[in-house]
Amino acid sequence: MTEDKLPTQSENFAEWYNQLVLKAELADYAPVRGCMVVRPYGWALWENMTAALDRRFKATGHVNAAFPLLIPMSFFEKEKTHVQGFSPELAVVTIGGGEKLEEPLVIRPTSETIIGTMYSKWIKSYRDLPVLINQWGSVVRWEMRTKLFLRTLEFYWQEGHTAHATPEEGKEETLRMLEVYADFAINDGAIPVIKGRKSQSEKFAGADNSYSIEAMMGDTKALQSGTSHDLGQNFAKAFDIQYLDKNNLLQYVWTTSWGLSTRFIGAVIMTHGDNQGLILPPKLAPYQIVIIPIYKNEEEKSLVMPVVSKVVQELQNFRIKVDNREEVTPGFKYNDWEMRGVPLRIEIGPRDVQKGTLAFARRDIPGKAGKTFVQQTQLEAQVAEALQTIQASLFERALAFRRAHTFDPQDYTELKSVLEKGWAFSWWCGDAECEAKVKDETKATTRCIPLEQEPGRGTCIVCGKPATEKVIFGRAY
Amino acid sequence: MTEDKLPTQSENFAEWYNQLVLKAELADYAPVRGCMVVRPYGWALWENMTAALDRRFKATGHVNAAFPLLIPMSFFEKEKTHVQGFSPELAVVTIGGGEKLEEPLVIRPTSETIIGTMYSKWIKSYRDLPVLINQWGSVVRWEMRTKLFLRTLEFYWQEGHTAHATPEEGKEETLRMLEVYADFAINDGAIPVIKGRKSQSEKFAGADNSYSIEAMMGDTKALQSGTSHDLGQNFAKAFDIQYLDKNNLLQYVWTTSWGLSTRFIGAVIMTHGDNQGLILPPKLAPYQIVIIPIYKNEEEKSLVMPVVSKVVQELQNFRIKVDNREEVTPGFKYNDWEMRGVPLRIEIGPRDVQKGTLAFARRDIPGKAGKTFVQQTQLEAQVAEALQTIQASLFERALAFRRAHTFDPQDYTELKSVLEKGWAFSWWCGDAECEAKVKDETKATTRCIPLEQEPGRGTCIVCGKPATEKVIFGRAY
Repeated sequence: MTEDKLPTQSENFAEWYNQLVLKAELADYAPVRGCMVVRPYGWALWENMTAALDRRFKATGHVNAAFPLLIPMSFFEKEKTHVQGFSPELAVVTIGGGEKLEEPLVIRPTSETIIGTMYSKWIKSYRDLPVLINQWGSVVRWEMRTKLFLRTLEFYWQEGHTAHATPEEGKEETLRMLEVYADFAINDGAIPVIKGRKSQSEKFAGADNSYSIEAMMGDTKALQSGTSHDLGQNFAKAFDIQYLDKNNLLQYVWTTSWGLSTRFIGAVIMTHGDNQGLILPPKLAPYQIVIIPIYKNEEEKSLVMPVVSKVVQELQNFRIKVDNREEVTPGFKYNDWEMRGVPLRIEIGPRDVQKGTLAFARRDIPGKAGKTFVQQTQLEAQVAEALQTIQASLFERALAFRRAHTFDPQDYTELKSVLEKGWAFSWWCGDAECEAKVKDETKATTRCIPLEQEPGRGTCIVCGKPATEKVIFGRAY
Repeated sequence: MTEDKLPTQSENFAEWYNQLVLKAELADYAPVRGCMVVRPYGWALWENMTAALDRRFKATGHVNAAFPLLIPMSFFEKEKTHVQGFSPELAVVTIGGGEKLEEPLVIRPTSETIIGTMYSKWIKSYRDLPVLINQWGSVVRWEMRTKLFLRTLEFYWQEGHTAHATPEEGKEETLRMLEVYADFAINDGAIPVIKGRKSQSEKFAGADNSYSIEAMMGDTKALQSGTSHDLGQNFAKAFDIQYLDKNNLLQYVWTTSWGLSTRFIGAVIMTHGDNQGLILPPKLAPYQIVIIPIYKNEEEKSLVMPVVSKVVQELQNFRIKVDNREEVTPGFKYNDWEMRGVPLRIEIGPRDVQKGTLAFARRDIPGKAGKTFVQQTQLEAQVAEALQTIQASLFERALAFRRAHTFDPQDYTELKSVLEKGWAFSWWCGDAECEAKVKDETKATTRCIPLEQEPGRGTCIVCGKPATEKVIFGRAY
């Protein structure tokens, strides 16, 4: 099914990615065009992501619930911009229980409409606000060009939907969740992301303002890795979500929505991976440690295996895999688990048993440079330290890479040239025409207007008109 | 939306249930016929159930994965019995991305067909077996008569799908997972269930044998609360799932599937609930404890609230809700949380502060009989003990109820009479005609042939022919 050896990243980054996803058994193509199967190794990675996010959602006062998969087609027509954005992508159920349905049902591409309908029923008074609900599930969007994890007909995600009494609270929530995503990406994913506002032409269909975290992949393309939308009163008005305020007056609520999906698995693969395969950040890796016992005969095996058991016992607070396959060599196992991205390998052979040592091999530093021999004492602390070091070093490396590939072009000609090799961080007047011109001529889009930028004034890199904000231009997935 | 007061169980059990589900905010009706919204309180209950089950699945060697929602219609036609069973219930997508699809896609009603297709690709050799995969998600079945949690168009569940080298291993797995379900129901749900084999007419479409756990609800009807299917080689042959054995010969695998759904929430409600509302078993309750501060003025409040904080601090290993609403009375709060089934209420008033006491009120014993005053010392141990007592007493009560409503009729006339008031545990010859006769004349079906029964021989309660097994007859949800 897959070639034995991956193409290198520089040969063909896209093929390196596609083959790696299959070879590492993260996912597979489903029999339905554009759909994927997330295999156990990929799903374990996603479970670690969902746990890390869910903990943050609950800590910020959110609760989970579940809304139906099927939405009446007419609901989409209530919010004009929303239906325009989503109608080309809908999967439509027209037959149920053997009969043609009176009204077609849509498989949710996102749930603002059905959740808005329920909120209009549940929210009566200011005492009911804020409503802070999240949902874990999958959605379907009829994409034409698909790629495992990055763009599939069905994908897995969470979608938060909140309702507030004031526009300030709505905006605060939108930015709070953007911050939660950035914190997760940086601290758990080891991915340096830039928080910013999307341009008006790139925002979510139905939002007043959209915000995103943007990450640079190993081929210098951008990946939008999480989004948070300030929906203003657009959905409140379309779905009649009103509450009685303290003065007994009817008011429309202010809503937000925010989502992060299995796309983030693609971000992890393309941010950290190398020519050998995956490199998974320790905080998210399904296995943080793989233990490879080394022996050539039964006598050596009887020396080595008790030490393996002892080590497993001491390291039970970590996610460990012991590879005790008999039919393959230790060298094969090294390659296999390097390809699958396990951050730390522990080798235990007969000489280690004699000397009371172990070999640690760091996945992020290949070969001898990443290998150290440690004493079999205070193992838990030594492993914790090694994993922290790997986690931090992955982040630093990705940050250095992004910095090395982010440019400050001096004019439009230079802009076009730097967009061949990375991002540009440039003054932009905010005009959609300038954005469109760059897109036409370079395929790069505005990724986001970073929230953290020095205040100042400049001239638009495209048209030369006055500009008050800088934007990131980049080619994107 | 709902009446202020619930009907009593004896007045109208069905309405008691329907209104309670809404009033306790476990679930709500969705705008699509037969679909439900699981509200945060209901979803928190389901999350506790999923965690309790997932832990057991992983402890028995299973891993999670995710297979697509959409299945080509033709896949269903590969297994003859399966398609007959499911085709009347399918929701069919005929339009995607604005165009009519060449082949209609079905929203999964269960995933044997799509998972079988992937297994035929993944499984090559005996070294790949067993495959032990579970999936958490939702499925859609076009039901005509629906009821929240018990039967809805879309419902949430897990479905395990395993493949094995031998029929013995397949059967062993089927029974292992039945045991896992029973252990979960008994120890976490406090629901005494009977493990048994389904009759041939009640088995899963495509299985060789189906097994279930059956529980008796408060109205004496049975609820099938989890099922495990021995699929033999039916799906292996239909989907060409073959492996090379140790002798390099191609063999078909043996598969199983097993599922437990949000139906189990219905089982918890109808097993333990009383006229006041829900009674949730402590191991699954979203809140195990509700704390009600009692004060009449600011001075009392300033005495009480520091003790509340101290108690919350000491009980942080439990799931606690502090109800500090100012707009309602303590009495209102008692009723509210009784209705919502919180197992233990702790009341803290100014007199308790003076005396260094607290009041514990057990949900399972209403009124003064369930109330005790305890010292504010060793609170964690006292609460743990109270919750264990409640958990155990719920189980004992449900078991006593089932025993009191399970009968051993002496002849067919008596069978018909006892089925008005509970279950019958009777000899049955195994003939589908006898089963059908009982169903026609009493609406009761065979629930299961309990695995644990004394060996012996008798005569069929219906036809009088020799019988080697006893079966449970009962009306069922």
